[in-house]
This record gives sequence, C-alpha cells and structure tokens, in this order.
Amino acid sequence: MSTELFEVVTPEAALARLMVHVLPLGRTERVPIDLAAGRVAAVDVRAPEGLPAFARAAMDGFALGAVDTFGATEGLPTYVRIAGEVPMGAAPAEPVLPGTAWLIHTGGMLPPRADAVVMVEHTQRIDATNIEVLRPVAPGDNVVQPGEDVAPGSVVLPAGHLAQPHDAGALAALGITEVEVVQAPRLGIIASGDEVVPAHRTPGPGQVRDVNSTALTALARAAGAEPIRFGIAPDDRATLARTVVRAHAETDALVISAGSSVSARDLTAGVIAALGAPGILAHGISVKPGKPTIVAVAEGKPVFGLPGNPVSALVVFDLLVAPAIRRLLGMTDAPMPQRCQARLAHNIPSVTGRVDYVPARLVEREGNLWAEPIFGKSNLIFTMVRAHGLIQVPLDLGGLRAGTIVDVRLF
Amino acid sequence: MSTELFEVVTPEAALARLMVHVLPLGRTERVPIDLAAGRVAAVDVRAPEGLPAFARAAMDGFALGAVDTFGATEGLPTYVRIAGEVPMGAAPAEPVLPGTAWLIHTGGMLPPRADAVVMVEHTQRIDATNIEVLRPVAPGDNVVQPGEDVAPGSVVLPAGHLAQPHDAGALAALGITEVEVVQAPRLGIIASGDEVVPAHRTPGPGQVRDVNSTALTALARAAGAEPIRFGIAPDDRATLARTVVRAHAETDALVISAGSSVSARDLTAGVIAALGAPGILAHGISVKPGKPTIVAVAEGKPVFGLPGNPVSALVVFDLLVAPAIRRLLGMTDAPMPQRCQARLAHNIPSVTGRVDYVPARLVEREGNLWAEPIFGKSNLIFTMVRAHGLIQVPLDLGGLRAGTIVDVRLF
Repeated sequence: MSTELFEVVTPEAALARLMVHVLPLGRTERVPIDLAAGRVAAVDVRAPEGLPAFARAAMDGFALGAVDTFGATEGLPTYVRIAGEVPMGAAPAEPVLPGTAWLIHTGGMLPPRADAVVMVEHTQRIDATNIEVLRPVAPGDNVVQPGEDVAPGSVVLPAGHLAQPHDAGALAALGITEVEVVQAPRLGIIASGDEVVPAHRTPGPGQVRDVNSTALTALARAAGAEPIRFGIAPDDRATLARTVVRAHAETDALVISAGSSVSARDLTAGVIAALGAPGILAHGISVKPGKPTIVAVAEGKPVFGLPGNPVSALVVFDLLVAPAIRRLLGMTDAPMPQRCQARLAHNIPSVTGRVDYVPARLVEREGNLWAEPIFGKSNLIFTMVRAHGLIQVPLDLGGLRAGTIVDVRLF
Repeated sequence: MSTELFEVVTPEAALARLMVHVLPLGRTERVPIDLAAGRVAAVDVRAPEGLPAFARAAMDGFALGAVDTFGATEGLPTYVRIAGEVPMGAAPAEPVLPGTAWLIHTGGMLPPRADAVVMVEHTQRIDATNIEVLRPVAPGDNVVQPGEDVAPGSVVLPAGHLAQPHDAGALAALGITEVEVVQAPRLGIIASGDEVVPAHRTPGPGQVRDVNSTALTALARAAGAEPIRFGIAPDDRATLARTVVRAHAETDALVISAGSSVSARDLTAGVIAALGAPGILAHGISVKPGKPTIVAVAEGKPVFGLPGNPVSALVVFDLLVAPAIRRLLGMTDAPMPQRCQARLAHNIPSVTGRVDYVPARLVEREGNLWAEPIFGKSNLIFTMVRAHGLIQVPLDLGGLRAGTIVDVRLF
C-alpha cells in the first residue's frame, strides 16, 4: 500500500474513477419553499395548474377586440366606447361588445371576447366614455395568455435541480408552499497526526492546532453536506483504523486529513485500503498543491485522504470531495459555474505535467476583472483568507503571462 | 408624488443617492467559527500569537546547519552523521551539532541550531547513521519560519470582511474558536395589490398568488438579512400606510412589492414619501426590467418600492437592495464578484439609454463559457428558474452580437 504502487493521475481521471462507484443517496425530506435555496429537488416538481390561470393585461390600457383597432392611425383613428373598468383581483362583469373597450390595469383579467390590450399611450380621450385608438393592435398584443408562463403538468423544478432563492417565488406562484428535497449526505471528518491538538487547546512545543477539521466542517456545509466530526486520531495504526471504521459505518462519505509526512500518509493509505472494496482508486494527483491525495471507495462510500496542508485540503475538497457530495445529492445541474475568467495581473511560473492552483484576489479596474495572484508557500493558511479563488494553470503550460485571460475557480 | 415629478436615473445614480444616507447598523453577536461563513466580521480579528509558533520543516528530510551542505554536489557530496529523529508533536531533545543532522518529517519542529532542511531526495544513505548530502541548501530552505504565515498582532480578518468557509480553518490555527460578527439587518417585506392572495390560497377569478413575498424572503436570507414579512396590503391608502408605518418602525430596511399598474405604484410612492425624511430619492431607473422602482430613505432606513413583476423585483433586489443590505452589514469587501464573463451565444436586441438584463443560462463548450440568453416577456417567472444569471447589456449599446464577451451577473 505504499505510495510507489500508484501512478500519479490527473484530478479528472481520479474523479472519473470515483464517480463509477458513487450513487445518489435518495433520502428526502420536505421543506418550506423559502428555505429550499441551496437544496436539491428530490423529484420532478410539476405545475398543478397553468400560469397565468387567465388572460392578463401586460400593460395599462384598454381591453378590446383587436378587430376594432384595425387600420387605426394618428390621422385616422378608430373610435371605441368605454364600457367600464376591470377591477383588480376580480372577474370583469361583462364581455366586451364590438365597438367597446374596458379600462384595464397591468395584471388585470381580460373580459370575455377581449383579445388584446391597446396601451393607454396609444389612445386619446374624447370624453368620459369615448376614446380614439391611434395605432392598431393584433390579437394577443399586450396580453399574457393562460398557461403562457407555465403549462399545466409541465416540470417546473426538475429532480436534481439545485434550488435558487428566486425559485421559491416561482413555486409560490403555483401555490406550492413545500418542496421535497434531498437530505444532506453525512460527511465524516477525521484529522490525524501526532502533532495535532484541538483548536481550543494551547499547543505544546512541536504541536499545532487542528485546522482542517474546522475548515472541512465549514466547506462541507457550504457544499450541501452535514459534517460529522470524529476528532483527531494519532499516527498509530490501531487507533486510526478504529476511528476510520466507525466513521465509515456512521456516515455516507469520509475525509481523513492525513499527516503531512510520507510515513503518516502511508499509514492513512493502509487504513483506507482495509475499509472495503473496491478500495483505493488513486493515490497521488497531478495538482499543486494537493499531490498526495488518496481517492477511494469502500462499500459504495467515497473515502478521501486529504493532504494535511490546509491549502491543499481546500483545493482537493473543491476538485474531488465537492463533486462527490453533489453526486450523493443527486444534483444534475451545475448550479452556476464556480469559476470566472479574468485578466492575469502578474506572470505565474509553473511546470508542465501538473495543474497548478495559485490563490488570487479579483479586482475590477476600468470595467475589467483582474486576477492578482497571491504568491506564498502552499502551506501558508492566511494567503487564502485574502483570496477570492484559485487561478488554474493548465497541465501543459509552463506558466502564464500577465495579461492572459485565466480561469479562476471561485471559493 | 406622481411619477411625473421624477426623472428616470441610472441604477448607479440611484444607488449613490441612497448610500449617502445608509450607515452600518453595528449590532453584533458571537458565533462559532465553523458557522461564521457568510457572516461579516464586526471587528478586526488580530492574531494572538505568531503562526507557525516554531520553525517547521516544509519537507521530509534532514534538519541541519546549512553550512554543512555548502559546496555539496553529486560528485563531491558532504558527509553528515544522523544524530536522531525529531518526533512529531514534540520538541527535539537536543540541538544539532556541527556535522550532524536530525531526520525530520514535514511539519516537524526544527531542533535548536538547525537552520535548513535538506530533502530526503537530495541525500544518499551510507549506513544506519551516516548520509551523503548531494546538493547544498541555504539557511531557511524547506523551513517555515516562526510568524511567516501570520505575525503576532497582525489583522487576520479585517472588520467588514465576509467570512468564507476556509477562513474558519485559518482562525482555528490561531486558537480562535468564536468570532464577533454583525447581526443580520431586519428586512421588512410587504406585498401589495388588490389582486394578490397568499401563496397557500386558491386564487379566485382575476386573482394571483403572492410571489414576491416568498421570493424576497429567500433573496433577503441569501443576501445576509433577516426577512420579516408583513403580509399583503390592499391598494387602499389607509391600510397600506398603516402596514408600511408599522413595518418601517420594526425593521432596518423595507421593501414593498408594489402593484403593477401606474395607479398602484403612485399609491405606494405616496405612502413611502410620507414615511419621513429625506424621502424618495429616485422614482424610475433606466433598467429593463425594473424601471418603475422607487428608492427612498426614511429616518435613516432604506425603503424600496419594487415593481410587482417578479423578474423586475429580482433584478432590482440585486442592483439596489442587496448593496443596501451589505452597507447595513458594514461589509467592506465584495466577497467575490457576483458576475462572470462569457461568450454570448445569440444576438440580443436592445435600445440605448437603458441597461437591459436578459436571463441567461451558462454552458461550457470546449473549455469556453457561453451565455445563452433566455428570451421571454419580462413577467414570465419560470424563465428565471432555468437561468444562472442575467446578461447585462450596457446603457449605450443598441444590443449585443453573438460571440461578444458579455458580463453575466450571477444569481
């Protein structure tokens, strides 16, 4: 189970191997629609009725038969009698008769036999009950037809859709006030390393506080998982194995923040390999920082060995763990691209054969978005606080020149 | 107070007028760091100590005095005796003596008098206690110095910073387990219109369900505010005024989703104008959809009259309400640009003199991001469910050609 048995693979290859074995969990729950944002729809949500339910005016004006406006011009207007005013929130009392129109407000219900609305700007009052129409309208003009927004029975929120805040409004329009969403996958989090003490403890000489349990907890929540922490395991095979086996049994996926040294990583690899089939799928990915990553599946559950270095852990979480969570959630659409393009502010050196991620701050100058790389050793934690995302330096480029348009993966 | 008294202004001008009167609220609370993501730091958080606290190995290798490697080459290596192994999580027992080295793992504490780590790959074992060093190291090589990540007393999270998930890890590294954040501003939400019924009710003829209260509730939460709903007011001056006055008293900012007709909007404007000084700052903005927007401040609290059309309400929320919430939160940094650049998939027609927002879906093709505009009447709600964001067509362009790089404001 030593590192040497595995070839370094690209993150895409590691993810592809992983995804073969990961299936949506399918546990669901109902939530009120205004709390659904960020949750994944568990089933197709269909429109119980059409929307709008009736023909509505899209403008303030006069509802009439379009035929009564045909040929109208400013020089030669047509004449129409105002038969009444459509009240908001109620059905008009009578149909529109030929040669007559009803005053109507935006959102008002068209009276029977009216098929268009002429905008108030295109009419001229003659007296209290008569208007001139100065421009013709075609049937359907300035009218939202029944079912034009949504047809009855159509899918309004497909299963696997990550609900956005504004989706709640769309569901409310249909009278849907609760929605079936996927339950958050439980992500087990284990830190390891003899040198690691809990964040609330004062470290002794040579000791450091546990950074990754906290960071992974927050990242898991942001990715839609329920984080469950299993504390810090020492670099001792029996204890680590006991913690990992328990966490694996009690959760849907597992991340182990491994010690930084080769021996600590080999220990973690051995424990992960013993968890179950198919076992380790990749050990080492062609990414900097993040190379000493372990990707495994045991009994259908993804298991990750993440580098102890917090910046690496963040990069690998983003590249591999978050997509696995999305799969467990059954998410079918990428909600929004978690990346953007910007102009590079300084040269970035790199080596070919691996993808480099460099933390960057985004700034807007004269309407253009610039990515300012933040250089620093990859194990410096606080470079990340100042960054908006990571500049991706592709596999086969030996660096990037200032001014190039680059991809930035946003946090 | 009729619409005619006001000139249409750009959204930027309306926002600038508003911001003159809006100040951070300054109410704070303490939260655990792993729940701080999405919250705004209330005060500068300073490092109580330096990080790392001691000189650490950045690589697996041998800790030694760099001077003992000077001049080393593969052909003419220098010789060093291994005096011991630095345990993880403990101080080395002895200093490094000239001509000796300690085996050290990544993250291990450098022994006294060691000033560099030579990587294990650049050494050759001779026997159990002696190595050849094949390349020289300079003092500091492969070592993270005390305070290199963070100096003691330095600001690690500035006041006004929107905390990201990974910030939690950085704070944990310093032993900071709770952080003072700004309390969510209370955003009052009022729907109005005689035709509007609550989402759970079956609308009668001519009636529609309240879409905006639900959508604004979800948007407010996503923007960092605490939504407080005040129900649906009819288009009746006395009742609307009573609801608005009460909501204004009980919240920090207020949005009123106005009826769609001109008369309903004028009613809303009158009620808002009577709330207090300085009153209405803009009535009508040069944006489509969203033109009939009212921007006001009354007694230091922002008040918005949003168009009844749900798509307009979303656009205006994003352009004006969300920035006001960020100001009330005291947010000093834009957390990440809520926009990206993409290639336009189809032509978009527009008129000069206003900014058009067209809902768009983002798709990745051959490594490029394309924005596919979703055309439809601006009052169709369900176009938004399929969109990732809004393409911004600038004020002075009469449309955009397919292939152009466009700005997309992400939801």
